[in-house]
Amino acid sequence: MNEVLDKKIIGIDLGGTSAKFAILNQQGKIQEKWSIKTDTSNDGQLIVHDIIESIKQQLELSELSTEDFIGIGMGSPGTVNQANGTVTGAYNLNWKNPQPIRQQIELAFGLPFFIDNDANLAALGEQWLGAGNNEPDVVFVTLGTGVGGGLVSDKNVLRGAMDAAGEIGHLTIEINGYTCTCGKKGCLEQYTSATGIERMARDMADAFKNDSSLLKKKIENGKTIDTKMIFDLAKENDKLANKVVDRAAVYLGIALGNVANLLNPSTIVLGGGVSKAGQFLAEKVNKEMQHFLFPTIREYTKVRIAELGNDAGVIGAASLVLNELLKK
Amino acid sequence: MNEVLDKKIIGIDLGGTSAKFAILNQQGKIQEKWSIKTDTSNDGQLIVHDIIESIKQQLELSELSTEDFIGIGMGSPGTVNQANGTVTGAYNLNWKNPQPIRQQIELAFGLPFFIDNDANLAALGEQWLGAGNNEPDVVFVTLGTGVGGGLVSDKNVLRGAMDAAGEIGHLTIEINGYTCTCGKKGCLEQYTSATGIERMARDMADAFKNDSSLLKKKIENGKTIDTKMIFDLAKENDKLANKVVDRAAVYLGIALGNVANLLNPSTIVLGGGVSKAGQFLAEKVNKEMQHFLFPTIREYTKVRIAELGNDAGVIGAASLVLNELLKK
Repeated sequence: MNEVLDKKIIGIDLGGTSAKFAILNQQGKIQEKWSIKTDTSNDGQLIVHDIIESIKQQLELSELSTEDFIGIGMGSPGTVNQANGTVTGAYNLNWKNPQPIRQQIELAFGLPFFIDNDANLAALGEQWLGAGNNEPDVVFVTLGTGVGGGLVSDKNVLRGAMDAAGEIGHLTIEINGYTCTCGKKGCLEQYTSATGIERMARDMADAFKNDSSLLKKKIENGKTIDTKMIFDLAKENDKLANKVVDRAAVYLGIALGNVANLLNPSTIVLGGGVSKAGQFLAEKVNKEMQHFLFPTIREYTKVRIAELGNDAGVIGAASLVLNELLKK
Repeated sequence: MNEVLDKKIIGIDLGGTSAKFAILNQQGKIQEKWSIKTDTSNDGQLIVHDIIESIKQQLELSELSTEDFIGIGMGSPGTVNQANGTVTGAYNLNWKNPQPIRQQIELAFGLPFFIDNDANLAALGEQWLGAGNNEPDVVFVTLGTGVGGGLVSDKNVLRGAMDAAGEIGHLTIEINGYTCTCGKKGCLEQYTSATGIERMARDMADAFKNDSSLLKKKIENGKTIDTKMIFDLAKENDKLANKVVDRAAVYLGIALGNVANLLNPSTIVLGGGVSKAGQFLAEKVNKEMQHFLFPTIREYTKVRIAELGNDAGVIGAASLVLNELLKK
């Protein structure tokens, strides 16, 4: 049990509503998982304390000690300073000042601790054991309330000069398009996030002249619409719903085509709520993207739907630990 | 002289017309440089032989032996397989089959040999000792007959799954724009390479209604125009020339803004013939790019003109040697 290769990893995926935990082996297989609520009261000052206590409890329950582990990995919202192991700007956790997370957790367990942005770890997870099939060059795109991303190049997460790399949602794809929450115009997020797709549907319904569309009727009757409904109707050949989905696919095609021209990933993985549309979405985006790919990579670049769901973060955290320990 | 830190590096920058050589110290300072013509006859089979002989001669002349060096770095056109040290598809060298360059050069000198794509090495050179000021995250863009690029992230060159990363010239910036030599529509190269800028000038002259433009007169009188002339006239406030330059700057602003949103470099370096327009160009591109940058990075991302000229390749080759030896 104390052989190095048999030792385990603790993965943590911290979010605004819950923190997910897993104990994984070095092949990334989850052996135990659990979660706790994130307590954002008192400026979120109990969050790291609660994480430490929860891990201690679980180790006791599982009859494990810190000697059974090679390290702890964690994904966090906000801007993560990898070198210092601190987090700033995690507004959904109510953290107002930089948090010395590594220091707290290393003091508690005496194990090597590595932390990264949650989107980067989801990307690492999908790259390793999800739709990325452990290919070294994989881009991960979350299509949720917003659009975010993580870039894995030669098995490394790209972070950039200010830890701000991977803002796929804010690629400009329409010079004079919708104004984004970021203040800029024509961001991908405005057309391909859940909210963006719903907004496009409402705007396109006005100009749509075919009365046979159920989606148009729902919108005109003031019914609530959501992305799932739009995709379901598109699958049933609703004309307006199809127009909306096709437009989102064209914008994704332009943006992901440019991402591929720049980074040459083998696979682009789509995750987040919108990606639940599955193969129907992946096929449309793959088809549109072809028009925007440099010929050398055209046959080679694939769009795939994410496979790990909510486990991507903790699996990515384990991958981070392994990658960083390997560098030392 | 035999202290490891005093040892030197040989840098080679192989091109279709000449091969440039330099002997550099480990700070990247060029101590000697020379060049030979590239002999592309006989399917280019004498090229590597000539390179080896030229280095041998120079070592004799300089009274140096292989023991005075830590390694040899080389930039080559074509697709470079880093792992194998081979080159394919270097059409301007007449190489029809993969060339085992590392093997040949290591056999001749018994020194560690590293090879990369020429654009990647120019990027590394500018990142290290040129306009990149040794910042870890720098993007290099050549605006020449075509538009190419090299991406340096955390001091590493990004290569991608097929060694095809960095195709900045083929980012789509106009969905239904000019058809590119690559077959795709609206590539950046069609608007911001030397040939692209000249073509825009001719196309825009037709629609331009102001007769005071000297550029318009030259075009209408069938005179040869070139990019230098267009920039010179723009600096003198020629109205059409300014419109052409501004349009190129907007397209560069969109493309480089998206590159920055994705990779978050601190500096984007413009090289190649078009970049000789200097600060006049850099200021316009910087200004346009602001509109397309995610707010977090807006104040932070700078466009600068390349500083190393023809030495970028051999300096980048030295940087490659140092980086790769450090990894071992």
